[in-house]
Amino acid sequence: MITQALPKSPPDIWQLIRHGEYDGVTGSLAPGYVQANLVVLPKAQAFDFLLFCQRNPRPCPLIEVMDPGQFEPKLTSAGSDIRTDVPRYRIFRHGELVDEVTDIQSLWNDDLVSFLLGCSFTFESALVEAGIPLWHWETGKNVTMFKTNISTVPAGGFSGPMVVSMRPIHHTKIVRAVQVTSRFPGAHGAPIHVGDPQDIGIADIHQPDYGDASEFKEGQQPVFWACGVTPQAVALESKPPFMITHAPGYMYITNMRDTDLAAL
Amino acid sequence: MITQALPKSPPDIWQLIRHGEYDGVTGSLAPGYVQANLVVLPKAQAFDFLLFCQRNPRPCPLIEVMDPGQFEPKLTSAGSDIRTDVPRYRIFRHGELVDEVTDIQSLWNDDLVSFLLGCSFTFESALVEAGIPLWHWETGKNVTMFKTNISTVPAGGFSGPMVVSMRPIHHTKIVRAVQVTSRFPGAHGAPIHVGDPQDIGIADIHQPDYGDASEFKEGQQPVFWACGVTPQAVALESKPPFMITHAPGYMYITNMRDTDLAAL
Repeated sequence: MITQALPKSPPDIWQLIRHGEYDGVTGSLAPGYVQANLVVLPKAQAFDFLLFCQRNPRPCPLIEVMDPGQFEPKLTSAGSDIRTDVPRYRIFRHGELVDEVTDIQSLWNDDLVSFLLGCSFTFESALVEAGIPLWHWETGKNVTMFKTNISTVPAGGFSGPMVVSMRPIHHTKIVRAVQVTSRFPGAHGAPIHVGDPQDIGIADIHQPDYGDASEFKEGQQPVFWACGVTPQAVALESKPPFMITHAPGYMYITNMRDTDLAAL
Repeated sequence: MITQALPKSPPDIWQLIRHGEYDGVTGSLAPGYVQANLVVLPKAQAFDFLLFCQRNPRPCPLIEVMDPGQFEPKLTSAGSDIRTDVPRYRIFRHGELVDEVTDIQSLWNDDLVSFLLGCSFTFESALVEAGIPLWHWETGKNVTMFKTNISTVPAGGFSGPMVVSMRPIHHTKIVRAVQVTSRFPGAHGAPIHVGDPQDIGIADIHQPDYGDASEFKEGQQPVFWACGVTPQAVALESKPPFMITHAPGYMYITNMRDTDLAAL
């Protein structure tokens, strides 16, 4: 493991990861660049999953979808290799996690389709830059996530409830938070709910289904965004024969700037 | 053919079209509702075409993609039947136009995937409402369209140049035109070029590849938007064994409001 300061450009970071010189979480790497969720599926499941993402753009914002067998994300990240440049991968067979690895070259074949999906880091940076503090950034915790009673729109074998992330926002900043995140439909976009958690089937705001429970300060209210855990959860529930994802927090770093993802 | 005033709600219009009581162009029907381009392909071509649309959202904004065999656009237009509710269809075999019909029930099978793509009517209405007059609306002509030297991003067998529509806009209104159309990424969104036609490979602004040549008034400049002719042209160039589209101008009318398509 290297001890000097990490490089900031995505191509330099890919090299480190590819050669086993970095295998940690990516949250603080390459500020200003889009980080992505990875889902790899056999072509037999790829049409239905692509359709699922098209029908559910809030939880599943597509950044790049690669041809069957293609491992270089040419459109956003020319020169990178999706099989080596993610710090940690998870391998699933028939919906069961069977392994966690740092390289998937030996598992690769020409039938696999890779999906890169937008991630909340992009809009969280924009919130912080807009003067809206985030509890989990300040405390180094994981964002608070819940299963909801909001159904995703099914496609083929893929269906299930939407998972949301929740951030406590001061009531004077909620309108601004809606505006700022609306600019990034490629990174989950605007909130899907503001206010009472019970409206979307969340019984206890202090008992998240994933991540850490947030603390609320005086005047803060819960604001909910569609979460990138949704597509992975939905894909797993359909028990595809084979599937590869990144490990949570160990994201793929694209060579696309956050600002390139802004709608306006 | 009926002579009384046409109904304004999409479900009423579907009934008329379905029963052979209206078979004309749709431009003036159901104001405020999204009209869509239709592309129907066998499932064997559908993944690549869906990928093509995902990679080229400006010319190919997806409104709804249906499951193989599904003919009711449940998400945008419940109760409608895509096989009967378009006034006129075009049938292509191996890239050749072989027939024009008003009903495709006899051609339907469970392997066909239907794509509804956004159409410029939506953003044109928004331009007119914003006080930006459109020559082809005022004169009853067809919009001016050109092939460009801008390549679309290929996917599988689908590739080709982007087709654009061009509208003369007064120089004092160009910024407003960019703003207004940016709100509708589901209907081609912001312009792809403003100014010199030669920058995008157009030799003569008075000699369009499709539609009618526009007249320019004092102070007007050409503004170019990605055009829904692109996906049909690209799909045809790949010569799929079978393909159905709407006939130009005879669009599918969804039950979605233009405002539902607005990004912000």
